[in-house]
Amino acid sequence: MPNPRYDVIAIGNAIVDVMAPCSDELIEQLGLVRGGMTLVDPQQARTLYQAMGPAREISGGSAANTLAGLALLGARCAFIGQVAQDQLGEVFAHDIRAAGIDFATPPRPGDPPTGRCLILVTPDGQRTMNTSLGASQFLPLEALDLEAVADALVLYLEGYMWDPPEPRAAMRKAIAAARAAGRKVAFTLSEAFMIELHGDDFRALIAEGLIDILFANHVELAALTGEEDFEAGVAALAPKVPILVVTRSADGAIAVAGGMRAEVPAEPVEAVVDTTGAGDLFAAGFLFGHVRGQSLQTCLKMGAVAAAEIISHFGARPEEDLQALMKKRLK
Amino acid sequence: MPNPRYDVIAIGNAIVDVMAPCSDELIEQLGLVRGGMTLVDPQQARTLYQAMGPAREISGGSAANTLAGLALLGARCAFIGQVAQDQLGEVFAHDIRAAGIDFATPPRPGDPPTGRCLILVTPDGQRTMNTSLGASQFLPLEALDLEAVADALVLYLEGYMWDPPEPRAAMRKAIAAARAAGRKVAFTLSEAFMIELHGDDFRALIAEGLIDILFANHVELAALTGEEDFEAGVAALAPKVPILVVTRSADGAIAVAGGMRAEVPAEPVEAVVDTTGAGDLFAAGFLFGHVRGQSLQTCLKMGAVAAAEIISHFGARPEEDLQALMKKRLK
Repeated sequence: MPNPRYDVIAIGNAIVDVMAPCSDELIEQLGLVRGGMTLVDPQQARTLYQAMGPAREISGGSAANTLAGLALLGARCAFIGQVAQDQLGEVFAHDIRAAGIDFATPPRPGDPPTGRCLILVTPDGQRTMNTSLGASQFLPLEALDLEAVADALVLYLEGYMWDPPEPRAAMRKAIAAARAAGRKVAFTLSEAFMIELHGDDFRALIAEGLIDILFANHVELAALTGEEDFEAGVAALAPKVPILVVTRSADGAIAVAGGMRAEVPAEPVEAVVDTTGAGDLFAAGFLFGHVRGQSLQTCLKMGAVAAAEIISHFGARPEEDLQALMKKRLK
Repeated sequence: MPNPRYDVIAIGNAIVDVMAPCSDELIEQLGLVRGGMTLVDPQQARTLYQAMGPAREISGGSAANTLAGLALLGARCAFIGQVAQDQLGEVFAHDIRAAGIDFATPPRPGDPPTGRCLILVTPDGQRTMNTSLGASQFLPLEALDLEAVADALVLYLEGYMWDPPEPRAAMRKAIAAARAAGRKVAFTLSEAFMIELHGDDFRALIAEGLIDILFANHVELAALTGEEDFEAGVAALAPKVPILVVTRSADGAIAVAGGMRAEVPAEPVEAVVDTTGAGDLFAAGFLFGHVRGQSLQTCLKMGAVAAAEIISHFGARPEEDLQALMKKRLK
């Protein structure tokens, strides 16, 4: 088999983050769920935007953030996701291509506009996300480049995308194409409320052996397994997937593969500025190690280093030279 | 006379900055004038954008940045400037209003889009700006709220806006309205090449006694006076305006008013991250001191503190609590 064209191809929401610092009082006043991700309709988005302070726009989207990290580390990547034919769509497309990631999904004309995520960052660095999916939820089956999927070592899917029917169909088809080509499928559960909505689907994908690498945080682990206790959750889920990766914020992360377990503490960070993208970049570091054949322990460490970079500045796209950082931290 | 509604009202370009870090090699390769501001047409903007790395969008515009600083310091401000009816126009309008600045100019439908400035920031923190003025240059005379102009202590005008005929007409009319109401007119020369184009106009405004406070940097001073020597330039210009303020990058700034001269060194900065907005925020600090009746020396110091804040992070809109910063630095 010749060397595949891509290390990782991902299907995800194509979203621009609209980020502003925010007081704890404003979060309370707006009735937002601190630290969570909420889907908002256009009217709610307008109201919330009006209440937000001066913001800045930085390309986001969970899987797209992961690819941005992977590309900086030196991986060859492609992204499939739907923007609208508007200015924010141009911004998203520019930024992902400028990161060296192939992105060929044509923009979608007309309404709704490109998806955006209104992110309020409290003084402790915690982010509260309010997502208006916009064009993202209309990713059509035809946008799926099956040849590219078959030509990537890993297909990476974002659970956030499971709700709208069109992207879900595209992801199911992509999974089939990847597996038929002997590729690996990685999946992130993204958010506990996605499990409330689609937990049965996710459990079925796992039971059918369609997921090779599963990313979850401790909250999602509990939601998926029904086990409140972390270790009980790990024990319940780990036997069902070849590789399970569970992050637990400041308490580091664990991975279990074929009965072997590895563990890392969180990397030290001078100051947590903005936690947006921490999970996305953890996945980037881990997957980079994985496609380069590193040990489970090293994969975890690479995830922790990439996550530490992203939370030390505003925005979910890396700013530092991740390759240099890895060399320094992995010594 | 009752207390005026505004401390400062400004007419300026309504622009969103598109900012990306950039290597020195790329600046050379693209044939850009390092540290300068160049007007680009839509085609040049497209080419340049494609060559830029992943960027972030932050509201900008010289006079608008100055108002953002003034508002954070506690001044009551209004802005007049033209955005298009598009997503970047919404971003600009949101950010300026969220900063507490009155902004009532209606968006302009159709082409061209909202102005944007592609800013490449080299590792030394120097910014190279490429501006596509877009809708900004079509600010119509009707957009001028003469009552608001007459009801502000200071009318602040940006030299960048002098080139397109419609805003120029609006500025001339605004000057007349401000003076008729007994208000002060402050003007920033903005950029040496504006003086090449419109130096005669600027010199005429000054000769007619229409400018009360003139802001220039050392390069603009030389361009306007024809004096290469800094002190010769100051000596030539100072007698012609009630207050002259000249910044000179790392060498601090001077001000001359009624034959009295004050001087400050640049404020210490831990690391110069991005010089975008340094002059704009210097003007903000100075004008705030001025409308609060501070001494020339204190006005300069406030300008230097605000400028130091802006160059210590990415983007030309302040991020720190400027009021707290002033208290600390002015002790």
